[in-house]
Amino acid sequence: MPKTPVRPVRPPHRESAEPVPTEPGDTSYASIPLLVERHLEDFLRERLDSCGRIDGDFAEIAVTRLAEFVGRGGKRLRPLFAWYGWRAAHGAASGPGTGPVLRAMSALELLQAFALIHDDVMDGSRTRRGAPSVHAGFARAHRRERWSGSADGFGTSLAILLGDIALAWADDMLAGAGLSPAQWTAARGPWQAMRTEMMAGQFLDVYGQARRDGSEATALKTNRLKTAAYSVERPLHMGAALAGADRAVVGALRGYGADVGVAFQLRDDLLGVYADPESTGKPAGEDLREGKRTLLVALGLRRARDRGDRVSLAVIEKVLGDPGVDAGGIDAARDALTRLGARDAVEERIRDLADRGAARLDGAAIDPAARDALRDLAVRATVRDH
Amino acid sequence: MPKTPVRPVRPPHRESAEPVPTEPGDTSYASIPLLVERHLEDFLRERLDSCGRIDGDFAEIAVTRLAEFVGRGGKRLRPLFAWYGWRAAHGAASGPGTGPVLRAMSALELLQAFALIHDDVMDGSRTRRGAPSVHAGFARAHRRERWSGSADGFGTSLAILLGDIALAWADDMLAGAGLSPAQWTAARGPWQAMRTEMMAGQFLDVYGQARRDGSEATALKTNRLKTAAYSVERPLHMGAALAGADRAVVGALRGYGADVGVAFQLRDDLLGVYADPESTGKPAGEDLREGKRTLLVALGLRRARDRGDRVSLAVIEKVLGDPGVDAGGIDAARDALTRLGARDAVEERIRDLADRGAARLDGAAIDPAARDALRDLAVRATVRDH
Repeated sequence: MPKTPVRPVRPPHRESAEPVPTEPGDTSYASIPLLVERHLEDFLRERLDSCGRIDGDFAEIAVTRLAEFVGRGGKRLRPLFAWYGWRAAHGAASGPGTGPVLRAMSALELLQAFALIHDDVMDGSRTRRGAPSVHAGFARAHRRERWSGSADGFGTSLAILLGDIALAWADDMLAGAGLSPAQWTAARGPWQAMRTEMMAGQFLDVYGQARRDGSEATALKTNRLKTAAYSVERPLHMGAALAGADRAVVGALRGYGADVGVAFQLRDDLLGVYADPESTGKPAGEDLREGKRTLLVALGLRRARDRGDRVSLAVIEKVLGDPGVDAGGIDAARDALTRLGARDAVEERIRDLADRGAARLDGAAIDPAARDALRDLAVRATVRDH
Repeated sequence: MPKTPVRPVRPPHRESAEPVPTEPGDTSYASIPLLVERHLEDFLRERLDSCGRIDGDFAEIAVTRLAEFVGRGGKRLRPLFAWYGWRAAHGAASGPGTGPVLRAMSALELLQAFALIHDDVMDGSRTRRGAPSVHAGFARAHRRERWSGSADGFGTSLAILLGDIALAWADDMLAGAGLSPAQWTAARGPWQAMRTEMMAGQFLDVYGQARRDGSEATALKTNRLKTAAYSVERPLHMGAALAGADRAVVGALRGYGADVGVAFQLRDDLLGVYADPESTGKPAGEDLREGKRTLLVALGLRRARDRGDRVSLAVIEKVLGDPGVDAGGIDAARDALTRLGARDAVEERIRDLADRGAARLDGAAIDPAARDALRDLAVRATVRDH
C-alpha cells in the first residue's frame, strides 16, 4: 500500500446532506451529528499523532483507515439517541457540561465501527456503505502490492485488528471524556451492558445461522439484542443516566427504546427483502441470499408449514443462504412471503411496537419537548423507505 | 455442541504445580497467581450468571469457553509484573487496599486471553496450550454437529467474538475493581497505552510478514511492542502508578521492563528454533515454518548477505514461511544460523539487556526486597529452557 500523508478524519464528501450547526454551542437535535463528528475528529487526530510516535506504518495504514471508516459514519444514530435520553431526563441543552457528555456519547460511534468491521468479517460482506468493507479493502491492497501469503488472510487479520482498536478506543474515549465521577459511575452500567448485549446478539446470529434456527423467538431475540438494546435502548439509557435520571424515567425510556428499536429492525428486515436496491444501496434480496433468519422469514416458514403449503416452503428455503440464487428465485421467495401474509404480519407488528413504544413515554417525568421529539422519531424510524 | 451445565472457571487439572497461598491475605509473590485466579473466577462467575439471564446458549457455549480458556492461563505473568511494580513503588503487601489493586491487575489476564485468541486466528494456529485453539475447537464442534455453512468460518467468527468479549470485559473488570478515583486515573495511562501498543505490535507482525520485512529494526520493534511493552514494561508501570509512584521510580521500572521484556522475547525466539520440543510443547522449528521475522533470523540473513554466503542464505530463506518443510530443512537452517554466529549474537544481546535492565533499578527509590526480586526475575526470565 503506498504511504499517504495522514489525512483529515472527515471524508471529502459526506454520505448525506445534514444540517450544519448554525453557531458554536448549538445543540439542537439537528446539530448533534456534526458535533459528534467534531469530537470524533479531535479524538482520532490525537490518536493518529500518538500512534505516529509508536510507528509510522501503523498510524498511516491502520489508524488512518479507521479514521476514514469512522468519518463515513452516516446518521450518528446512537449518539443521537443518547442525546435524546439526556434531554428527556432534563440534561441541559447547552453550557459547559454538555461538552464532556457529547464526547462520551460520541464513543458510541467507535463501538459501532468495531461492530460493523467485525460483523463484515463474520458475514463475509465485501461492501459497506458503497465501498469495500475493511477486510475486502486490505485484501485488495495485498493483491495489488503482490505481498507474501494469503491476501484474504491478510485482509481478515487487519480487519480483526482494526475492530479491536475501535473497541479499545471506544472505552478510552468514554473514560477520557471528562465526565464527573458520578456521571462516569452512572454511565458505566448501560455502557457495559450494551457491549455484552451486542456481542450476545452477534453470537445468536452466527450460532442461529449455523444451526438453521428458523424460530420466531430466536429472530426476535437477536433483533432485541443486536439492534434494539444496542442501537436505541442502551444509548437512551446511557444519556438518561448521565443526566442522573431516576428509575421511572430510565424505565420509560428503556421501554420505548426496546419497542421502537425492534420496530426499527423489522422495518430494516422488510426493506432488505422488498425495497428498491436504488434506495437502500444494497443488492435486492441480499438478506435472503445471506440466509438471515429474520422474523419475516420465520413467520413465512411457519405459516407455510401450518398450511401445508409445500411449494411456498420449498421456494423460500431454496434461496436462504444460497449466494448463487438468481433474481427469479428471489422474486418467487418474496412473492411467497407476501402471499403467506408474513409481510402484512410484520407491518402490523411494526405499527404495534411503535405505538406501544411511544405510549411508554406517557406519564413519566420526561421533558415535554424531548417526548414530542421521541414520538416523532418512533414514526420516522419505522415508516421509511431506506 | 451439546449443552453442558455451567462449569466452574478453574479447569480440573492445572498446567503446572504452583504454590498455594498458605493463608488468606498471603500476598507473597508466590501466592499472586492463585489470588489472581480467584479474582478472575469471581468476575467470570458473575458474568456467566448475568449472561445466562441474557441467553442460555450464549452463556453456556461462548462465555463458558472463555472462562475455561482464562482458567488455563499458566503463569499469570502480567499481573505478577504489575504486583512487582506495586511493591517496588512501596504499595502495601497486605491490607484492605490490596484487594481492589489485585483485581485491577487480574484484568491483564483477560487482555491476554483476548490477544491469544485473536492472534491464533490471525496466525492460523490450531493449538494453544496443548489443546485446540478457540477457532479450531469451534470449527471442530461445527463439523461434529454437522451444522450449516463453513465450519472454519464458524470457528473464526466465534473466536473473533470471544476475543472481543475478553477485550471488553478486561475494561469492565478494571473499571469495576473498586480502585480509588486517584488510582483509577493513574492506572488509565499505562492501561490505555498498553492496549494500543500491543495492537501496534500485532499490526507490525502481520504487516511485516506480508511484506517479507526481514530487517533487524522491525524485528526488534515488534518485540518491543508485542512483548516488552505489553508483557513487562506496562504491567510494571501500571502497578507502580496504582501505588502513586513518582516519575523517577516509574522511569526506572519502565526502563527495566523494556530491556528485560525484549530479552525475554529473544530467549523465546531462540527456544522456538533450538529447544527440545519436549520442553516447549511446540513442534521443533515452528517459528521458522511460520515465517516469524525474529531478530535471530534477521541477523542470520544479514550476515549471510554481508559474507556473500549464498548457500546459507538459500537454506534459511527456503524454510521461512513454508509449512511443508521437512525436519532436514529445519536442521539445515538451524545449523546455518549457528554457523553464521546469529545464535551467539542473540545470546550476547540477551545478557546485555538483562544486565542493563537490572542496572536501571540502581539508585531509584525502589523497595529493596522488590529490587532483589526483580533482579532475580531478570535472570530467570532470560536464562531458561522452556
